[in-house]
Amino acid sequence: MLAVRLSEGQVQVEQTRRPRRPKGHALIRVTLAGICNTDLELLRGYYGFAGRPGHEFVGVVEEADSPAWLGRRVVGEINLACGNCPTCAQGLGRHCPTRSVLGIVRHPGAFAEYLTLPEENLLPVPSALPDDEAVFCEPVAAACEIHEQLGKLQGQRVAVLGDGKLGLLIAQVLQVGGAQVHLFGRHPEKIAIAERLGVQPAATGLFDVTVDATGSAAGLSQAVSMTRPRGRVVMKSTVAERVQLDMAPVIVNEISLIGSRCGRFAPALRLLASRKIDVRSMIADRYPLSAAPQAFARAAERGCLKVLLEPLLEY
Amino acid sequence: MLAVRLSEGQVQVEQTRRPRRPKGHALIRVTLAGICNTDLELLRGYYGFAGRPGHEFVGVVEEADSPAWLGRRVVGEINLACGNCPTCAQGLGRHCPTRSVLGIVRHPGAFAEYLTLPEENLLPVPSALPDDEAVFCEPVAAACEIHEQLGKLQGQRVAVLGDGKLGLLIAQVLQVGGAQVHLFGRHPEKIAIAERLGVQPAATGLFDVTVDATGSAAGLSQAVSMTRPRGRVVMKSTVAERVQLDMAPVIVNEISLIGSRCGRFAPALRLLASRKIDVRSMIADRYPLSAAPQAFARAAERGCLKVLLEPLLEY
Repeated sequence: MLAVRLSEGQVQVEQTRRPRRPKGHALIRVTLAGICNTDLELLRGYYGFAGRPGHEFVGVVEEADSPAWLGRRVVGEINLACGNCPTCAQGLGRHCPTRSVLGIVRHPGAFAEYLTLPEENLLPVPSALPDDEAVFCEPVAAACEIHEQLGKLQGQRVAVLGDGKLGLLIAQVLQVGGAQVHLFGRHPEKIAIAERLGVQPAATGLFDVTVDATGSAAGLSQAVSMTRPRGRVVMKSTVAERVQLDMAPVIVNEISLIGSRCGRFAPALRLLASRKIDVRSMIADRYPLSAAPQAFARAAERGCLKVLLEPLLEY
Repeated sequence: MLAVRLSEGQVQVEQTRRPRRPKGHALIRVTLAGICNTDLELLRGYYGFAGRPGHEFVGVVEEADSPAWLGRRVVGEINLACGNCPTCAQGLGRHCPTRSVLGIVRHPGAFAEYLTLPEENLLPVPSALPDDEAVFCEPVAAACEIHEQLGKLQGQRVAVLGDGKLGLLIAQVLQVGGAQVHLFGRHPEKIAIAERLGVQPAATGLFDVTVDATGSAAGLSQAVSMTRPRGRVVMKSTVAERVQLDMAPVIVNEISLIGSRCGRFAPALRLLASRKIDVRSMIADRYPLSAAPQAFARAAERGCLKVLLEPLLEY
């Protein structure tokens, strides 16, 4: 099968063996995959990564232990937890210390014609939800994670810093969840996507909650300066460099800085199926898997939104 | 009256006018005051401070609008809030943006024979609680603030980093509150004070909550590395320098970093009156007000616990 390999800063496309399905895993034919900023950072050597990336996908189950999965269109949770440790026992498999992670840590990713995942990680995609939207399930789950960690933000004044892919999704998810969201970014055409849902442009004053989705080391300091005493700053930027931060305002104003990563797929899939958020407008481009180097280059362009990889697309 | 003045890194004792009491304020004769690490940092120029420090005190009301206060032995909340802004309306006068702070921001402090404070800031000291213990109300309130922010920590595994004055109080307060506290420090004789209350020594493994009371920029990184996924790190160190921190583990493990400052006096006074914590063993030395330079030098010695200033003590 065709598969993408990242190594020493290069995107390669190679012919390789179809993965063998371990017991309990399903073999999934990938129909659509999305390039995430994390993939771009893996390419730059974040996590010392070399291997097959890709953790946003939709696919069809071709082999599984349970026949009920055969032929089902699915998305899949990306963390492969041990299931036996105290962290897993608390329902926090996403934090299992020995977990592997699809396309990120010790488990070959979705930028290939096939992948395997444990059947327990799979969720069937509702038939009314097209691949083009279901493929956003992972980043939408990352946005929904803010609700899981912070609870309802009904009526709260929220700033989202960064109008990249994740910032746009977060702004939409929190607005639909009842918050009064202001989106801070540099691209009016991107902010316009969220404004159609009632998200407001940048504004002054202090915020109850500020989400740093800038992807830059400077974003956190800015977020702290915009947050009211006892307010919360959600850190969604995975920045490889060390962050320099003046902690005095954090302590004096008793602000909480909350690290936030990936989330549960079920609420994200429900939200996508409700069609209350607009992910389709976020698709910037699509490439066949064989053109992965071009797709990565396109995704890395300043201001580019979601780039999709389609194994079956002709180039 | 005699009063202490910090200016350009020097501790001076000067004769000055007794403060005039504004309407709504009480005039309080200071009977005992404590030197806090913040005072040592003010001396080093933290906040660009020059003036009269001191925010830990016990005193007797000599003048007040309400005759009920006259002759009462009191402690007092250190934040002077406007009472009219949205922050004050939320009951967060300690975060009022235009507040002054006794001995820290635009309000002359307690290292003097007299101070003034709004009557609404005062709390009567129970007669059974001696000055030597009541003088700890402000730092005990800062420790109790962790309960106000994080809720009950019953049964949770808590690490307190730093066996200085604040670390020792935090370890005691959280242990008495039902947590399983481990105290990490370099001074066995200080840790012994907390161990008499059931606090345990340093241990391995991850903690539900880690409190950084090291007063050092390195403490925060260490605290993050000791905290379980989705755990909480309480930042109690006011470090003047900027902190360099690798945010990747904070985000990947979804840890919350919670700034924490001073707290409400009422629960602290109740806890002191209950005699469940041991503050008396934390008194390292006492000096008359006239010997404030020596008292500051003593307080700045490595490993020194609480140094008290007594206006009426003969030298």
